[in-house]
Amino acid sequence: MMKKEKFIDPWGSELPEDYARLIKEFGLEEFNLADFPNPNKLMRRGLVFAGRGLKEISKAIKEKKPFYALSGIMPSSEKIHLGNKCVIDNMAYFQQQGAKTYMLVADLEAAATRGIDIKEARKRALNYYIPAYISLGLDPKKTKFYFQSTNKDVVGLAYSLSGKATINEYRAIYGSTSPSRIISSVLQVADILYPQLKEEMPGVVPVGIDQDPHIRLTRDIAKRAKKFKFFLPSGIYHKYTPALDGSLKMSKSKGNFIEIPESSDSVRNKIMKAVTGGRKTAEEQKKLGGQPEKDMIYELFKQHLIENDEEFLQRIKDNKSGKILSKEDKEYAIELLDKFMEDFNKKFEKAKNIANNLDID
Amino acid sequence: MMKKEKFIDPWGSELPEDYARLIKEFGLEEFNLADFPNPNKLMRRGLVFAGRGLKEISKAIKEKKPFYALSGIMPSSEKIHLGNKCVIDNMAYFQQQGAKTYMLVADLEAAATRGIDIKEARKRALNYYIPAYISLGLDPKKTKFYFQSTNKDVVGLAYSLSGKATINEYRAIYGSTSPSRIISSVLQVADILYPQLKEEMPGVVPVGIDQDPHIRLTRDIAKRAKKFKFFLPSGIYHKYTPALDGSLKMSKSKGNFIEIPESSDSVRNKIMKAVTGGRKTAEEQKKLGGQPEKDMIYELFKQHLIENDEEFLQRIKDNKSGKILSKEDKEYAIELLDKFMEDFNKKFEKAKNIANNLDID
Repeated sequence: MMKKEKFIDPWGSELPEDYARLIKEFGLEEFNLADFPNPNKLMRRGLVFAGRGLKEISKAIKEKKPFYALSGIMPSSEKIHLGNKCVIDNMAYFQQQGAKTYMLVADLEAAATRGIDIKEARKRALNYYIPAYISLGLDPKKTKFYFQSTNKDVVGLAYSLSGKATINEYRAIYGSTSPSRIISSVLQVADILYPQLKEEMPGVVPVGIDQDPHIRLTRDIAKRAKKFKFFLPSGIYHKYTPALDGSLKMSKSKGNFIEIPESSDSVRNKIMKAVTGGRKTAEEQKKLGGQPEKDMIYELFKQHLIENDEEFLQRIKDNKSGKILSKEDKEYAIELLDKFMEDFNKKFEKAKNIANNLDID
Repeated sequence: MMKKEKFIDPWGSELPEDYARLIKEFGLEEFNLADFPNPNKLMRRGLVFAGRGLKEISKAIKEKKPFYALSGIMPSSEKIHLGNKCVIDNMAYFQQQGAKTYMLVADLEAAATRGIDIKEARKRALNYYIPAYISLGLDPKKTKFYFQSTNKDVVGLAYSLSGKATINEYRAIYGSTSPSRIISSVLQVADILYPQLKEEMPGVVPVGIDQDPHIRLTRDIAKRAKKFKFFLPSGIYHKYTPALDGSLKMSKSKGNFIEIPESSDSVRNKIMKAVTGGRKTAEEQKKLGGQPEKDMIYELFKQHLIENDEEFLQRIKDNKSGKILSKEDKEYAIELLDKFMEDFNKKFEKAKNIANNLDID
């Protein structure tokens, strides 16, 4: 069970049984806040809740030993959304704790599984994704960006490791054994282990909990590929992040998530439709109080919009007591999102220049 | 049925029904000697017997239009053997007829399916395979050698095309769906089509008949990948080449094939054990004559050792009439092989220098 007393977030164990079951069923390690210095708000508020090989990373941070953090950009959609930001926040966290930071552009995977032209993927990455990641907190001077398609070492490693897992293991992960899935998956394993070709060190991959099977597969393959003497890569997992309508499925046509960037009008429109924990009438809400634990606006506050823990907790209290109404929460969220987008846009133009002058092979 | 009258070789249709069946069953085209100017001895003697898309290549040669020939080096064994030389002879033929010639080193495939280190494969290719191919007749100035592991365009194409065939199609070819087989196979398809990324032109892949499924798969994928507008690659097929003991299985431990190069003593030892069409006694052979069509020494004469058709036919006649005994054939084969090896060794040292100074990415 998760050590709830260590979390600030009052509903950090939302669906507690579900997550406890996941931890038990898949043999995950619980995330222990005390193991990670200067935790970010996703950690403090229970969104980061589990992992594999966490002790190794905790130890490296505390002893200031080399380790790496790695994540990937899939340049398939037009834009990233706030949900994607959780991974970037965690990457930035590890970067600040001294991780050698690798950010790959999965252009070969996008070509294989989404039919996206490699040149087009490169253009998108340089003109949008990489600048966006920089704007959201990655330090370009400390981040090694690379493209799968031009990284010979990664491709070579993928081929070398391809025999270390069976088709059935891939089927278990994807429910499919399409050749495009398989060659992409093999490459993903190589991506995760690639930094260790340069330096023997542990590494961590921050992902949503649904990505654990990849980490498990990579650890299995790393174990079997004895001649490489790999550290088993660690995974650190955050919870599923719900859409604005409370569902787990982001849908462009439903407009149930916030893209980065997004215009003020569009943000307002989406926020106004968001599911809250408010009551039917203002009167009723004043009397009964809100239910922030069911409120998608509070999801946004928790994950993205309110950095300060005291402010966050106070607001929850005021919502619960009926002092703040859902309408006010929405207006405040819009105000914070507008600021967020303004800040992003300002940083983005500069970051675009940086991205296009990076030494990316 | 094959047009036997066009072939010089008197047992060109050895196992005629088997090969006729192959042609019919797999929808192959018969090889027509008249379609190819200046045919080499493998063509003239019926060893090259079928293909796919042959007319397209014949037309390109005759009209002096651009086309390419492509083959691969699998740097897995220590040495190549005389059997491998058939492919090189056909590559050299097309090169002489004006083909843009591509010779790839399948280092990624060797890593995936044979566990061979990519650096080791590169070393072997530069120090042995490529010089050997040059010594055996490829013009290094007119040949584009490349390594799979460093050819970004090939790898990118493999990923782009990976979704164009199903796992079942791969299973049909390999009888296996191991991930290493699949990613290697996808890459092979990309290799074959890669020259067309540079220039729209037909191309031919000379291979043993057992490799037809690869060509078929590549043609299927080329057809489906509409946006690339590929010419369907052509295949030109030679027959199975038997080992010195008459079996179809080359076996290092049985010493039933001639490596390149090989010492005079070792050649003699192997030739002396070879299966011939000779009779039990010299007396009997003088009376009944030999059976060159069952004689592995005559296989060597036919495929590799006797260039001149008149000499070749005369020798068959003399063997059949009992004028030449098997012992004499063997001594002559040894003499010719010694000359061949001497010539090879002389060329090889020079070719090694050339190979190591080639501009191979």
